[in-house]
Amino acid sequence: MVSPDPVSGPMSRPLSGIVVQKYGGSSVADAAAIKRVARRIVEAKKAGNAVVVAVSAMGDSTDELLDLANQVSPLPPARELDMLLTSGERISMALLAMAISDLGFSARSFTGSQAGVITDSVHGKAKIIDVTPGRIQSAIDEGHIVIVAGFQGVSQDTKEITTLGRGGTDTTAVALAAALQADVCEIYTDVDGVFTADPRIVPAAQKLATVTYEEMLELAACGAKVLHLRCVEYARRYDIPIHVRSSFSQLEGTVVSGSIDHQEPTMEQAIIAGVAHDRSEAKITVVGVPDKVGEAARIFEALAGAQINLDMIVQNVSAAATNLTDISFTLPRSDGQTAMTTLASLQSEVGFDSLLYDDKIGKVSLIGAGMRSHPGVTAKFFSALAGAGVSLRMISTSEIRISVVVDEDEVDSAVAAAHTAFDLDASEVEAVVYGGSGR
Amino acid sequence: MVSPDPVSGPMSRPLSGIVVQKYGGSSVADAAAIKRVARRIVEAKKAGNAVVVAVSAMGDSTDELLDLANQVSPLPPARELDMLLTSGERISMALLAMAISDLGFSARSFTGSQAGVITDSVHGKAKIIDVTPGRIQSAIDEGHIVIVAGFQGVSQDTKEITTLGRGGTDTTAVALAAALQADVCEIYTDVDGVFTADPRIVPAAQKLATVTYEEMLELAACGAKVLHLRCVEYARRYDIPIHVRSSFSQLEGTVVSGSIDHQEPTMEQAIIAGVAHDRSEAKITVVGVPDKVGEAARIFEALAGAQINLDMIVQNVSAAATNLTDISFTLPRSDGQTAMTTLASLQSEVGFDSLLYDDKIGKVSLIGAGMRSHPGVTAKFFSALAGAGVSLRMISTSEIRISVVVDEDEVDSAVAAAHTAFDLDASEVEAVVYGGSGR
Repeated sequence: MVSPDPVSGPMSRPLSGIVVQKYGGSSVADAAAIKRVARRIVEAKKAGNAVVVAVSAMGDSTDELLDLANQVSPLPPARELDMLLTSGERISMALLAMAISDLGFSARSFTGSQAGVITDSVHGKAKIIDVTPGRIQSAIDEGHIVIVAGFQGVSQDTKEITTLGRGGTDTTAVALAAALQADVCEIYTDVDGVFTADPRIVPAAQKLATVTYEEMLELAACGAKVLHLRCVEYARRYDIPIHVRSSFSQLEGTVVSGSIDHQEPTMEQAIIAGVAHDRSEAKITVVGVPDKVGEAARIFEALAGAQINLDMIVQNVSAAATNLTDISFTLPRSDGQTAMTTLASLQSEVGFDSLLYDDKIGKVSLIGAGMRSHPGVTAKFFSALAGAGVSLRMISTSEIRISVVVDEDEVDSAVAAAHTAFDLDASEVEAVVYGGSGR
Repeated sequence: MVSPDPVSGPMSRPLSGIVVQKYGGSSVADAAAIKRVARRIVEAKKAGNAVVVAVSAMGDSTDELLDLANQVSPLPPARELDMLLTSGERISMALLAMAISDLGFSARSFTGSQAGVITDSVHGKAKIIDVTPGRIQSAIDEGHIVIVAGFQGVSQDTKEITTLGRGGTDTTAVALAAALQADVCEIYTDVDGVFTADPRIVPAAQKLATVTYEEMLELAACGAKVLHLRCVEYARRYDIPIHVRSSFSQLEGTVVSGSIDHQEPTMEQAIIAGVAHDRSEAKITVVGVPDKVGEAARIFEALAGAQINLDMIVQNVSAAATNLTDISFTLPRSDGQTAMTTLASLQSEVGFDSLLYDDKIGKVSLIGAGMRSHPGVTAKFFSALAGAGVSLRMISTSEIRISVVVDEDEVDSAVAAAHTAFDLDASEVEAVVYGGSGR
């Protein structure tokens, strides 16, 4: 027996890296789609990687399960709803493992609980507390391709099955990548990457090759649906590069990585990463609030107690004659009814005049790390909106973002005007490449 | 503070008994059916019982999942198939818990794994090794109605999800009843109970009020589909009475309990419990086997090694001139191909002449504890069959059973002739009550 050459022999081959891939519901909508995804996974395995996949439920199956739930109970208990919905990923992950097996590669599927995805106990929108990947690490070590059910976990205290809420599978993928110290987390979706604006509104929108975590966080928070906020937060915390790309093409997508704090500004760097918009919010105005210390706090405490996350908040200066002020804020439309009920119950206590509810609004946001070092961005943005005849209803800013609330039917023209004003429109040729395949 | 009266006060109320109920797929086929089952469960709870329910997947959903599996892989790995199929009960149990909750009662659903159903590692037909009901006992103690996914468990050694194979939910129910020391295990199905024959073949068949474990074992083994063999074996071992009844009516069904060894024969006791039939078997004949010690053993060892369970076995006396014998046996038709392949590979080694395969057969069985003490049952049975013009192809007997193999198209007339000969036919009035609602 001759020992293999310690430098070049087969035993000394460096351990391959771990790639985590995420496939959403539209990528595994039926048997043909599952087989196509299986081939892509096998390609990554053949390229020498250990592959771990987080997968969502097939197509509309989660909605179908929700429909069944509503047929038996108008208000199903959250624990049972989680038990029901987690069956969706159980189906898709087992089918995906079978399809991989059919290609001659060994795959093992694991529920969130089996994969060690530990969460808090908030059914329906649990947060990942920890990932204990012992069982999937063993499966990787044995050479299996690992398929993990996205969107689900098990609660630390009660050992109950939980779901992570919207975008949960993205978060599962990034959390697995962090726990396994993966090289990259690839998020496969039905678009080619992150665009400078929604190509359905701005046909000349361009795909971004790279974007920082901070910019992506602002884009996601402002309505860009390609990645969810929590997933990007998780990736930033653990410094996991995310590659957002299409499961329907072989094109390179957008790499989300790096911090703006560590980047040297370059000539090439765009001032603005993109223009996001969001039509999912409503605006509530509390009219005639006594302008005393603590009154506003009581309003916001009550809303927080009802688990409602507010977005933009504006308080007018009080009219001197009355010493009353108006408080306006935006919130998800889905929380509108709860918020109005909560506020109405406070009316006699706080002593405000009335409540106004408006869900015919939209939010348009300009996002870019470069705006920190480029004065005049705000003026240029507002000038472009004025030129397009758009009226501003609320304004809020962060270090790398300017957001405005406008009438819902002026959202499209506001996005287009801003996109053009900041020279984001692709040339005609590029627009064909990126804009056309943006859906 | 006055202590409650230790005899009649509320604290001294005797602890209520535990009732385990099982509902099959046809009982929870859609939202309306699930709501009906929920009402029935709540009735049992209102009657003062602690209620534990084992539930199957909805209607045809298991077949739909199998169809999906076959679309992605012609031969899916057994581990992944179990992962896939167990999602079916996860859906039905969560929906059932929601429907109960909607009636104002608290219900908690548990997977087989969560309920402590510990099995061996044979995917697709795992056997229950143990039930560790700590978690469901806690839920009972807290006053919840407990819903457990039938048909599934978790393997002791590998912690993998397993399924129990056909009739698995019946077995789950009985195993839970044994572990919880329940008073009774109610198996809800789409027939009114156990009948003296299949009412589709014998319209005058009667529902049995009671039947012993031993008789029920023979009935199940001989083709009566109302209960599965393993479930009855489990119930006998732990002495759990099974009440088989319809989920579509309030009629009393059939109670399976007691041992024939402990029963005093009474004037009223019928000699024959029923006539069962089975069209799921095939017959294989190994022609011209050298009549030497060990040759037959090698054939049966090979079949056992291929996991094939044989039923009736007949060996002809060898023809003196050739010293060759024929061996015939019956087996499930689904194992026919495997058995023929296994036997063909033995041909040169064992040196038999040829193999014959016949799946146009049926088995008719007469079952009754009374036949032990009543001579002449066999003669009367064969006489009835002869009178109906039925030819016998194989015969096998046990202490409380006589089985014959006949041509498949003579099964119906054989069953009817035996049923009449042993005075099992109901009077016309009874036939309307029992026979008419037998499906």
